[in-house]
Amino acid sequence: MQVDDQRLKEDILQNAEFGEIETVEGHGRTLLTGTNADRQAREYLVDRMEAAGLEVRIDTVGNIAGRWVPPTADPEAAPVAAGSHLDSVPAGGIFDGPLGVYGALEAVRTLQDSNAALDRPLDVVSFTEEEGTRFDVGVLGSSAATGLRDPEESLDFCDENGTTLREHLDRIGFLGDDSLDPSEWDAWLEIHVEQSTELEEAAVPVGVVTAITGLTNCAVEITGESNHAGGTLMPQRTDALVAAGTFVRDVERAAREIAATDSPFGVATVGRIDVEPNARNVIPGEVRLSIDARDVDESIMDELVDRAAKSLARLEAARGVDTTLDRVRTIPPTHMADRCMRSLHRGCEAAGVGTIELPSGGGHDSMSVANATDVGMLFVRSKDGISHSPQEWTDWEDCTTAVAVLASAIADLAGGNGS
Amino acid sequence: MQVDDQRLKEDILQNAEFGEIETVEGHGRTLLTGTNADRQAREYLVDRMEAAGLEVRIDTVGNIAGRWVPPTADPEAAPVAAGSHLDSVPAGGIFDGPLGVYGALEAVRTLQDSNAALDRPLDVVSFTEEEGTRFDVGVLGSSAATGLRDPEESLDFCDENGTTLREHLDRIGFLGDDSLDPSEWDAWLEIHVEQSTELEEAAVPVGVVTAITGLTNCAVEITGESNHAGGTLMPQRTDALVAAGTFVRDVERAAREIAATDSPFGVATVGRIDVEPNARNVIPGEVRLSIDARDVDESIMDELVDRAAKSLARLEAARGVDTTLDRVRTIPPTHMADRCMRSLHRGCEAAGVGTIELPSGGGHDSMSVANATDVGMLFVRSKDGISHSPQEWTDWEDCTTAVAVLASAIADLAGGNGS
Repeated sequence: MQVDDQRLKEDILQNAEFGEIETVEGHGRTLLTGTNADRQAREYLVDRMEAAGLEVRIDTVGNIAGRWVPPTADPEAAPVAAGSHLDSVPAGGIFDGPLGVYGALEAVRTLQDSNAALDRPLDVVSFTEEEGTRFDVGVLGSSAATGLRDPEESLDFCDENGTTLREHLDRIGFLGDDSLDPSEWDAWLEIHVEQSTELEEAAVPVGVVTAITGLTNCAVEITGESNHAGGTLMPQRTDALVAAGTFVRDVERAAREIAATDSPFGVATVGRIDVEPNARNVIPGEVRLSIDARDVDESIMDELVDRAAKSLARLEAARGVDTTLDRVRTIPPTHMADRCMRSLHRGCEAAGVGTIELPSGGGHDSMSVANATDVGMLFVRSKDGISHSPQEWTDWEDCTTAVAVLASAIADLAGGNGS
Repeated sequence: MQVDDQRLKEDILQNAEFGEIETVEGHGRTLLTGTNADRQAREYLVDRMEAAGLEVRIDTVGNIAGRWVPPTADPEAAPVAAGSHLDSVPAGGIFDGPLGVYGALEAVRTLQDSNAALDRPLDVVSFTEEEGTRFDVGVLGSSAATGLRDPEESLDFCDENGTTLREHLDRIGFLGDDSLDPSEWDAWLEIHVEQSTELEEAAVPVGVVTAITGLTNCAVEITGESNHAGGTLMPQRTDALVAAGTFVRDVERAAREIAATDSPFGVATVGRIDVEPNARNVIPGEVRLSIDARDVDESIMDELVDRAAKSLARLEAARGVDTTLDRVRTIPPTHMADRCMRSLHRGCEAAGVGTIELPSGGGHDSMSVANATDVGMLFVRSKDGISHSPQEWTDWEDCTTAVAVLASAIADLAGGNGS
């Protein structure tokens, strides 16, 4: 099978013009759901799908699916689907999302061109509002499609001006009434830029994702005693920020130890700290901190939180501060299906490219789809691991390689090529 | 000598009505320079001075001085002066400042009543804008009087509405043209509430101040590498906040060690911390912190800053962060004159009250006056060490005791009572 690298590149560059922003360096775009840029991007995708002979449907939250039934396929068989999203963060890059959508379309076109004998229909999909920029809810379209969110409630989400998703989609002509049900799919595959540097370090163009790491967030409060920095002698102090300093170190130490022994992908971050009163000449009386702990193994996430709680207990005893830890959110890890990973590995072999297995630190639509069917993800090498920035870049050659792997994997899952 | 405790109390309570605020508990007032409340407070002070036979003069920045020349004194001799300030912070207490002004006036009246044989004239003084609330410049009036600030430039300081000190003083009728030159004084004494709890702990009503602690402020920056909290594995991180946590602990440890060995009054505080980007899911890339280090010995202040700098050097080596430390301001300690301290101790003996020596953690007009003549300060026990709050409170009995001590000390310095 031969991917048409020019056709793929033209589609991605054409898509990059919708919401394009001026940048000194790089290629940036801001594509928020319901804008004119979004309308243009969606209309172009529909045109390209129809030009490739796909039958397009739009569901109630604006997800777009294009179906191709290969001549050799049973139209009633469960389809193999692939895709991603077209929306971006503000001043985002041109590959995060679109590479997965147009990569899936190009994979289908490649399979068409090669006259692959496939048993199953194929769906190319673009999910609405993956980034969560406009309605503060990420992976919205895929969550609604898979029943993790109620579609009607999702349509009532408001942007910061009070305009609902329903109004936005209606205005741009993408409030559909077709059905898109991932539980009817045999399998789902998604190409995405890596957002880290493991592929660069391993010098391979693509990587087979093993799992999307789980995430837990905790809200921590440390309360000491606020007092004048001049009049309060050292033995009289209960400084909340000094206790917080030790806590931040303890959280990092726990994560480093776990990463060095049990799980290299275990991470814990104190990213946010708010101090009261935060004044030069006042001893801090209260500190609020966030913990963000992630791993591909939920028990490691539990251990990271447990070690943070133990640090707080030590600080209460040693420093007389009061503390609270509230585990506000836990998203369990998402494991890729073995058969999808196998198909992607076979695709790498068929394309003659080296690969590694790696987890995904960030969230993707595949997380939602995994609740409905077997999923697999293929990461593509991204320069310096930069994403959500106009500096995000993936070499065209790597894009082509990823699509070749995807096309082989789809063929493998769809029952063609002798499988 | 017998202090008229009712007369003192009436003056302080009358003064407390100017700018009085409603509070659930305590006695609060907001007296900002140039307000109608300030005009009322100043006019009442002038009335009370004149009623006691003092000759009032107003200098170019609104400082008020009332001179009494005892019948036994040489009118040309260098006067002994005492006083403080009448302005307050927003929602401040009723003793911080006024106790020093009306305490000095009551001391003079007490000396008048006792027919003390004094060789020197006495000045009772209220300095303009000690708190620095309205023009963001503390000890303004005393700094201008002692030449630490240019009086003309000081009059051009603007409040947040762009109104100058000159305009404010002119409006309330206190833009004077008399001279007030502390270098012509033989000595200066100031009564002030303690703003800490050492007198309470020692169970004594008053304390003889040894020094006003010096203060140094540093601005610290720690730069690591901001990155996504999901995609960046622990060994790949340069987390500025983890380094900052160690730094905050190191600063506290240095101060605790110094307080336990070299100087119990040595303190160091990291009161302010600002993190970029301060987001739950982003590894902190940059942290800015403040250091506030104080002691009565300037070399201890230097050592505290030195140990903070060494902590940063260790963090650069151990964690790969970049750091800067900028020592933005240093106010050296102000030492009280031995002879003034001796006179205050004699005053305590004469009044038959126990006392201790202690430093002042906060700044006062006496800091400025020390540049012009010998100064002494007497602290008065203040409930729970609270000040700058309507909860600030000093028992009337302690006020009376302080004035008795002050009157004796003034007499001692002014050459009466056989000295």
